[in-house]
Amino acid sequence: MNFHTRKWIKPEDLNPNGTLFGGRLLEWIDEEAALYAIIQLENPRCVTKYMSEIDFRASAKKGDIIEIGLEPTKFGNASLTLRCEVRNKMTRETIITIERIVMVGLDDEGKPKPHGKTQIEYVKDRFKE
Amino acid sequence: MNFHTRKWIKPEDLNPNGTLFGGRLLEWIDEEAALYAIIQLENPRCVTKYMSEIDFRASAKKGDIIEIGLEPTKFGNASLTLRCEVRNKMTRETIITIERIVMVGLDDEGKPKPHGKTQIEYVKDRFKE
Amino acid sequence: MNFHTRKWIKPEDLNPNGTLFGGRLLEWIDEEAALYAIIQLENPRCVTKYMSEIDFRASAKKGDIIEIGLEPTKFGNASLTLRCEVRNKMTRETIITIERIVMVGLDDEGKPKPHGKTQIEYVKDRFKE
Amino acid sequence: MNFHTRKWIKPEDLNPNGTLFGGRLLEWIDEEAALYAIIQLENPRCVTKYMSEIDFRASAKKGDIIEIGLEPTKFGNASLTLRCEVRNKMTRETIITIERIVMVGLDDEGKPKPHGKTQIEYVKDRFKE
Amino acid sequence: MNFHTRKWIKPEDLNPNGTLFGGRLLEWIDEEAALYAIIQLENPRCVTKYMSEIDFRASAKKGDIIEIGLEPTKFGNASLTLRCEVRNKMTRETIITIERIVMVGLDDEGKPKPHGKTQIEYVKDRFKE
Amino acid sequence: MNFHTRKWIKPEDLNPNGTLFGGRLLEWIDEEAALYAIIQLENPRCVTKYMSEIDFRASAKKGDIIEIGLEPTKFGNASLTLRCEVRNKMTRETIITIERIVMVGLDDEGKPKPHGKTQIEYVKDRFKE
Repeated sequence: MNFHTRKWIKPEDLNPNGTLFGGRLLEWIDEEAALYAIIQLENPRCVTKYMSEIDFRASAKKGDIIEIGLEPTKFGNASLTLRCEVRNKMTRETIITIERIVMVGLDDEGKPKPHGKTQIEYVKDRFKE
Repeated sequence: MNFHTRKWIKPEDLNPNGTLFGGRLLEWIDEEAALYAIIQLENPRCVTKYMSEIDFRASAKKGDIIEIGLEPTKFGNASLTLRCEVRNKMTRETIITIERIVMVGLDDEGKPKPHGKTQIEYVKDRFKE
Repeated sequence: MNFHTRKWIKPEDLNPNGTLFGGRLLEWIDEEAALYAIIQLENPRCVTKYMSEIDFRASAKKGDIIEIGLEPTKFGNASLTLRCEVRNKMTRETIITIERIVMVGLDDEGKPKPHGKTQIEYVKDRFKE
Repeated sequence: MNFHTRKWIKPEDLNPNGTLFGGRLLEWIDEEAALYAIIQLENPRCVTKYMSEIDFRASAKKGDIIEIGLEPTKFGNASLTLRCEVRNKMTRETIITIERIVMVGLDDEGKPKPHGKTQIEYVKDRFKE
Repeated sequence: MNFHTRKWIKPEDLNPNGTLFGGRLLEWIDEEAALYAIIQLENPRCVTKYMSEIDFRASAKKGDIIEIGLEPTKFGNASLTLRCEVRNKMTRETIITIERIVMVGLDDEGKPKPHGKTQIEYVKDRFKE
Repeated sequence: MNFHTRKWIKPEDLNPNGTLFGGRLLEWIDEEAALYAIIQLENPRCVTKYMSEIDFRASAKKGDIIEIGLEPTKFGNASLTLRCEVRNKMTRETIITIERIVMVGLDDEGKPKPHGKTQIEYVKDRFKE
């Protein structure tokens, strides 16, 4: 699993009890999943269709740095299924895991659009001939 | 199920495709679940412990009004389980459902705190003698 | 008066003195009035035209839960006048009251649009025949 | 009246109808009044106590620049009363006026604190001897 | 140099260490420079092209009031160069200085648009004949 | 140079002209530099001290995905100097470059704190013995 985007927990990300607001974390994960799907499916119009159960295993506090990891587990006809893990960058403690996030690429009319992809691609390879 | 909090979809709530950003919706649900638990368990320190699978059934667009409904389904020892439904206020179309959101009340040391509650209470009744 | 939307006072809602930032509260009230008018007048284009004097009777602090109540007091030709009260959900203390908030429904050219409504309606009744 | 703070209307400041969200404007005014009072009363703990009626005379749209003007109209024992006008920077059209915004300086216990001021002072003069 | 826009440092503007988040300050400066250019060049489409080196000389803390000053130093063909200084309103301490911020006015196709201006103008003078 | 954090340009990130608001981009870069320094210097209290000139080479529009790259160029006594490049993830076009961002680690009294580091370290190596 590759861990890309990092977040620094700031006061605006806390709930009134002083720990990371769970809703903010879900917002970050959803954005990361969307852009991961956009890059892989080469379709700017990707939406979240499904998330499997979410287990909040640990929290984070102000000043912590977390990193969001995603890996593709299945390429469907118009969809891409991702596994997600968020962890504390410094301690490596797992904060949250989501086994399946299903992203779907849509066409101009908002209908599922087959993407023809079967495996992960790297943008840098698209630039080679 | 009671539907309380309402949201008006504003430009800042949209993803780049012009529909409601899923992460924003999850953020709203998590906040609503937290305050519902705080009120029921009479404990200001309630955290999200678990969410069952999430099915994004419909989207919403700029200017739509949505309402968030919650109902308690189980009172555990230190926990409260909620069922959630979000729907379009005007059309009544269901946007998202989550069967189980488990909220846990914590004590000052961050450990689960038994709450002794077994059924829903209304704040107005607490004011009667 | 029905109290609908609830807010949980988070760090991002505080002024530097650690109490609820008054401007944030006014922002929440204005949004709530707008969506109340949109629902009642069945017109997505409702704007705030006037607010009567505002008395800040009490404040709120981090972690408090507040609820925003509105009730219609007058149906004008193109307008709807609302009374607003915001209170602390747990203590029932009144935080702010506004006697009159005048919302106006507009047509496509931005001119007041007569709505023909004379009393409050519930969306659920619109779905019955 | 001096016009100080300027705002550039960005997408995040709009309501779903594409005009300046009234709640955002009230938030800006409240912040401006607070900092004006803090500077004049030399007390970092100033709160909004009262606003007289608010007339929304015109709106603003994306890309407009507005400026917020305040002038003191009365120095009370612990309070400062301000008059507010917000206008479009380019066209000079008035967007909103509020005749009286009453700000109160508080002491450490949250009680009104007499300030001994009777007229406007400029910070630059405080630096002269 | 004229100091216009003022900001009150709120919890949402702090980094996890409790001082003003530098990125927030840069965001405020960029907005202020954009609207200054829009007013002077009478072109709503002004973009930041260049900033010279930035020296963070002092920080600010929660509750501080800062003010942002700008002065034009050069009128180019399609550009306007500004000098910026941000200071603490109460202590007059300099927080940041930027010698040159180059703003460029664009035409409808996104190309530099000559503005014909050679000196600072005041909006109030444009209303005289 | 390693490119980590990715951002999806949403409506709230745009200036009124519909392109990425430069101030938002600077905010993102500053956060990324701070967390990079915190990780490398193993000091949670790192502040931005200096940025060399900033050249805005290209813009980005709604829906674009950008990625922020940083590489260390110099380890000072208490400081870390970084080079920054932001590029469009899909087209690889460079959006902004900053040759030197100087971050300084502070001690509890806010004074520069020597860090003893001379080269980049990976968190994963700190977990090996």
